[in-house]
Amino acid sequence: MRTIEWRDGVVVTIDQTRLPNEEVFLELKSVQEVASAIKEMKVRGAPLIGVTAAYGLALAAYHSKAKTRESLLKELEASANVIRATRPTAVNLFWAVDRVLKRAHETVGDHEAVRRAVIEEANRMADEDVEVNRRIGRNGSRLLKDGDTVLTHCNAGSLATVDYGTALAVIRSAWEEGKRVSVIADETRPKLQGARLTAYELMRDGIPVTLITDSMVGYVMAEGLVDKVIVGADRVVQDAVINKIGTYTVAVLAHEHGVPFYVAAPKSTFDLERKA
Amino acid sequence: MRTIEWRDGVVVTIDQTRLPNEEVFLELKSVQEVASAIKEMKVRGAPLIGVTAAYGLALAAYHSKAKTRESLLKELEASANVIRATRPTAVNLFWAVDRVLKRAHETVGDHEAVRRAVIEEANRMADEDVEVNRRIGRNGSRLLKDGDTVLTHCNAGSLATVDYGTALAVIRSAWEEGKRVSVIADETRPKLQGARLTAYELMRDGIPVTLITDSMVGYVMAEGLVDKVIVGADRVVQDAVINKIGTYTVAVLAHEHGVPFYVAAPKSTFDLERKA
Repeated sequence: MRTIEWRDGVVVTIDQTRLPNEEVFLELKSVQEVASAIKEMKVRGAPLIGVTAAYGLALAAYHSKAKTRESLLKELEASANVIRATRPTAVNLFWAVDRVLKRAHETVGDHEAVRRAVIEEANRMADEDVEVNRRIGRNGSRLLKDGDTVLTHCNAGSLATVDYGTALAVIRSAWEEGKRVSVIADETRPKLQGARLTAYELMRDGIPVTLITDSMVGYVMAEGLVDKVIVGADRVVQDAVINKIGTYTVAVLAHEHGVPFYVAAPKSTFDLERKA
Repeated sequence: MRTIEWRDGVVVTIDQTRLPNEEVFLELKSVQEVASAIKEMKVRGAPLIGVTAAYGLALAAYHSKAKTRESLLKELEASANVIRATRPTAVNLFWAVDRVLKRAHETVGDHEAVRRAVIEEANRMADEDVEVNRRIGRNGSRLLKDGDTVLTHCNAGSLATVDYGTALAVIRSAWEEGKRVSVIADETRPKLQGARLTAYELMRDGIPVTLITDSMVGYVMAEGLVDKVIVGADRVVQDAVINKIGTYTVAVLAHEHGVPFYVAAPKSTFDLERKA
């Protein structure tokens, strides 16, 4: 199931703050609505935030009343600043905004040509995200054996991306290849993305999942119940992985118990010019 | 503030499931009501559970219609079985029940003498718990330096005992001696004893406390924000400390970061005939 879709001037996505009790779809029609949805965490997950940001610029271009190339480019730059102010942690957001702006500036032609190019670029990025996640899944599934139990923290699933997920793509791929894998999801306080989102989407797909409290991670590892840990990432810098609070706690516990710990993330999450 | 009191045939205690939003006092009048309060976790904390169990037998003795020593002793044995079935993890419960029964059997005289002895023994155990906790505090406070930040998991405070606490007794003692200590309490999911009880009673006493989610423990230790960890115990066996889920997770993190980890518990929590 796609988490986000472009319908000629409207971006349709799911309000993740209402899951799993209600499936409420949002219809975003302006860059301001996109910015609010990201800020209020209705839209979350580094890859999805990136694509949503790109669609924010597509909305700006689609609804623009600009009559010249220059005024449209100016409007797009202003919209980019609105989006950049929403979530400083997810590098995908900056990557996506820069990529769409670059395409806009490089497009030869008038404002109509730029408008079409921006919308096309946003749609391309959404499609690419799905393709990249499928590849993460195919590559990553080689790490999993039949019978493995994988622990994951927060939500790096379909809901965090356009579709298929990053950490959960690895699990989905292994499952589709016929490996009997199961998942332990921790709650991920304070916003419970593990309980509300990861458990929800795995149950929907029929993949066995057990929900535990965050502090039970040590216990389940000590009992030998965890074969591997796979998480996503908000940002990968030269010397560190930046991700949801608690990822480090899980990593220390995995190290102590000799459990392999993997991070599944697309290139757009990498920010290798920086250190932590 | 005393967490439990004997008022001639009524045991008054606080309903801990309603804290911190409401201070609701329970008036327990029978061994069945005592058993329910322990089962439903309205009364919790190993030392408090022990004293409450003793008061359960005091209630049985007080309200008994037995006319002979033998029938009273028989009733007390039956009541002891009701109490023993409530919470197998807290060894203090078994210790308390055995101690009161022993006193009953050893008491010379008729049913009235046994009745008085049982009530007296329960009251003595409550007073002893306070005294023991004061001593834990005095001994333990030597471990804390001026300026220390102490992390604790779950609630091992006044509310877990008759008064003053075990882990929190150490912090209270240091505070009363003028050491400027502060506390980091983790939420302690799923029942939030850290958020609801530990933060509540420390704020009531004016001791600085910061509440974090359970999975933040690794982060605050990595940042050097924790000088010591002190927790209570449900049961101490030859080779292990049994305590609230998540205690082990905190211990592994403390070990990884070189943070001293202490367990504060009275002798009644020790069960040195067993191994884990």
